[in-house]
Amino acid sequence: MDKMFSFDEIMQLPSRYRANLINMVSGFKAANLIGTKSKNGRTNLAVFNSVVHIGANPPYLGFILRPTTVERHTYENLKETGVYTINQITTAIHKQAHRTSAKYDRAISEFDAVGLTEFYQNDFHAPFVAESHIKIGLSFQEEHLVKCNNTRLIIGKIEHLILPEKAILEDGDVNLEDLDTAAVAGLYNYYSPEHLGKYGYVKP
Amino acid sequence: MDKMFSFDEIMQLPSRYRANLINMVSGFKAANLIGTKSKNGRTNLAVFNSVVHIGANPPYLGFILRPTTVERHTYENLKETGVYTINQITTAIHKQAHRTSAKYDRAISEFDAVGLTEFYQNDFHAPFVAESHIKIGLSFQEEHLVKCNNTRLIIGKIEHLILPEKAILEDGDVNLEDLDTAAVAGLYNYYSPEHLGKYGYVKP
Repeated sequence: MDKMFSFDEIMQLPSRYRANLINMVSGFKAANLIGTKSKNGRTNLAVFNSVVHIGANPPYLGFILRPTTVERHTYENLKETGVYTINQITTAIHKQAHRTSAKYDRAISEFDAVGLTEFYQNDFHAPFVAESHIKIGLSFQEEHLVKCNNTRLIIGKIEHLILPEKAILEDGDVNLEDLDTAAVAGLYNYYSPEHLGKYGYVKP
Repeated sequence: MDKMFSFDEIMQLPSRYRANLINMVSGFKAANLIGTKSKNGRTNLAVFNSVVHIGANPPYLGFILRPTTVERHTYENLKETGVYTINQITTAIHKQAHRTSAKYDRAISEFDAVGLTEFYQNDFHAPFVAESHIKIGLSFQEEHLVKCNNTRLIIGKIEHLILPEKAILEDGDVNLEDLDTAAVAGLYNYYSPEHLGKYGYVKP
């Protein structure tokens, strides 16, 4: 039996119920940690489920930033320094990763608070997560303010990409299961995906 | 043993290898079909792995549109009529869904070409996918042209949301496994996620 909600019916739902429902219906999402460091050396780490592929040539990734307190540390640091990292959440660290969503004081680094390890690559200013098998260092490229609700699309250029050599297949694909990559759905639910198949480029 | 790529090294990779690699490293993605219909009644259906949550109150979803031929049918139809649908890809239909990525002629409806069924809700102009357990009807809200590579962020407002009543939990969360929802990674790989856990709102 299907349940149908119109826009008006969605708007009349209790706030928390609506947030859970609408965050779920787009499906599974990438589970990543975004790492930044202020000019004066304070590190920040925050869980994001909105990283999206923008382009491969040149390599760009985007993510959606909500106008909230926690994420503002990420935004301020990346605007101040021009760099940030995107780090894959594994099944092994997904509980710690989720705990970065708590609203810690600016003086507290989520690395310390949840027990994850900073890792630095050469002179790149932003901290990577040592426990993540895929680590991406980006430079801020452009941003778009979404008028309807003041979220922002933030786009960065990939400056550094670090991942285990053995997980890279001959065609450039990456075996995410071997890397223990987690997925997320809604605001609170984590998953371990099983491979169904690979289907290649399709012609009519 | 980690492999490290700098921006310059990524740019020197063979084109197909780079596309596969960069599409993989952001992690698992939502697997959805976007349905549209031109003013003169031609339906179009295309697989998208870039649907992203924009907001719940009011309910908005976004997706990234690449500047390609196939996806231009989707763009033209949604700009012409103001409406489109986002339909969950299930494990049962993931092979058919993937085949909509082939470059069919404009006169051919991907619904017919891959064997999926159009479904209409009241007088909403755009076609839903009958086989999808989660069906979302949206009205076009705003778009942003990404300057660095001419992709677009398209944002729509949820006008209709249709899903099985039994999959909606008491708090508004949706049991995606019961709905057989698939995930995608890279350009060609489909997955069936297993639930790891639900962790709730976190306080420091």
